[in-house]
Amino acid sequence: MLKPMHEIAPTVYVNGRLLPEGEASVSVLDRGLTLADGLFETMVAFGDRVFRLPDHLARLRGGAALLRLPLPPSRTLEAAVRETLRRNGRERSVVRLTVTRGSDHGRGLDVRPGTRPTLIVRVTPWQGPPSSLPLPGRSLALSPICRNEHSPITRVKSLAYVEGVVARLEVRRRGADDALLLNTTGTVACASSSNVFVVIDDALATPRQEDGALPGIARKTLLEVARSLGMAAREQSIQPEEVYRAREVVLTNVVSGPVPVTSVDGHPVGDGAPGPVTARLTRAYWELVAKTLGG
Amino acid sequence: MLKPMHEIAPTVYVNGRLLPEGEASVSVLDRGLTLADGLFETMVAFGDRVFRLPDHLARLRGGAALLRLPLPPSRTLEAAVRETLRRNGRERSVVRLTVTRGSDHGRGLDVRPGTRPTLIVRVTPWQGPPSSLPLPGRSLALSPICRNEHSPITRVKSLAYVEGVVARLEVRRRGADDALLLNTTGTVACASSSNVFVVIDDALATPRQEDGALPGIARKTLLEVARSLGMAAREQSIQPEEVYRAREVVLTNVVSGPVPVTSVDGHPVGDGAPGPVTARLTRAYWELVAKTLGG
Repeated sequence: MLKPMHEIAPTVYVNGRLLPEGEASVSVLDRGLTLADGLFETMVAFGDRVFRLPDHLARLRGGAALLRLPLPPSRTLEAAVRETLRRNGRERSVVRLTVTRGSDHGRGLDVRPGTRPTLIVRVTPWQGPPSSLPLPGRSLALSPICRNEHSPITRVKSLAYVEGVVARLEVRRRGADDALLLNTTGTVACASSSNVFVVIDDALATPRQEDGALPGIARKTLLEVARSLGMAAREQSIQPEEVYRAREVVLTNVVSGPVPVTSVDGHPVGDGAPGPVTARLTRAYWELVAKTLGG
Repeated sequence: MLKPMHEIAPTVYVNGRLLPEGEASVSVLDRGLTLADGLFETMVAFGDRVFRLPDHLARLRGGAALLRLPLPPSRTLEAAVRETLRRNGRERSVVRLTVTRGSDHGRGLDVRPGTRPTLIVRVTPWQGPPSSLPLPGRSLALSPICRNEHSPITRVKSLAYVEGVVARLEVRRRGADDALLLNTTGTVACASSSNVFVVIDDALATPRQEDGALPGIARKTLLEVARSLGMAAREQSIQPEEVYRAREVVLTNVVSGPVPVTSVDGHPVGDGAPGPVTARLTRAYWELVAKTLGG
């Protein structure tokens, strides 16, 4: 008897092969596993149409330049992403593209000539744009982990994500939904897997890359959306006190879109409910996504 | 026809199974691969006797506490290491123990209850103690990558090693053997996969953990060796100028032991040849290793 479509095991792309998720593996020699020597992008898609794929690939290419990782051509990456999406046949997907330096039989840090990258594409279900607004407010707590704004690695999406994992675990234990990460001088950088925005005096502001923020695709999109609505929207240094005092606080990543933060370290943001600026931005953000993807 | 022993494929331990290296793999869902969510130890062994295994396991356990990673009992880890060494049957080995958070079918940072760690042990050939001294001098160059001395993650041996990879690639391109890494305030932290020592006024000094140094097992051993020889040996903050002006500079990790540095950023260290203090320390270091391992 055929299983209904939704019970079919997900298919994962690994170096040109499409495999059932349970069989998709990489060598224990893969430098992505042994040294976090690789990069990834997390994207969202309607069918096989990926939101801002060129922006994701451009960011990936920037990371590959820093790591001197010989990335396959963009058409190869795009084809792998689209093929995996089609094979999984979901209406709405989160699609993660991972590229590692690849496997070699040596050990240590040195990259051996001829090492060929490992390419992985994995698709998981995405619930898509929210069906109603406002979204429930999230709580943030200050993390003991800080971002190294001095390192160029901080500005690329490498596999080295353990700081985010530890930050998230730590604040969850304290009852918060997500972690607010500062940089080494105590300036706000980001949340554990999101960018952070504050609304101050009707303007929208988000930490600069120089302060340790990752150049998020949803971050870039929200800045554009705010400007299209006539709002002032800028990248600037933000102190933790400005987050505590902000009228509204918003998190962004491409999976969740804009999400309101209603408490920080136990103190309510504004009146403790999702605010009108966040609602307006969120509506315009998802309209732009739907228009882009024709969804 | 049986292959001679040295041509038999290496055997890798993965979660209780011993597999030929070419078949040893982990799921693409493993958080060690996707998020660098794991830890490792690199050790050396004569036969199945590992140098300072309890020190390595204690450091691993410290890292696991920070990551809230439920590490298997030490006897399980020890048995996995010894069994893999015996199966590979080498006289002298480098043995790497990797523990990741394990695989889960979700995505994102949150750790799902019941996720079981992945345990990998890989053995590679080790040339063992040097057959003659002095060793050839190495060259260091200052890296543009800096260590985040403010983050507790910097003091554990997590899988997030991409900064070391990039630092090494960058200085190799400039003709140096290894990278000297400073911390965010410009104080010396370490080399890309070694601790660094300087000889100043007949005393041995190495950067403090608070300055971004990893608590290396060879580092600890060399401090003990120096003291046993009557030398002053201390952990202290070291500025780059002190490395440039030092009479001798030494790198340590457990695979190479103490190694002389004879140039830094193109400038000779001392008279540009490996120095007498390094030679004396290196001899005593390897005598201690041989005595410990009965080799």
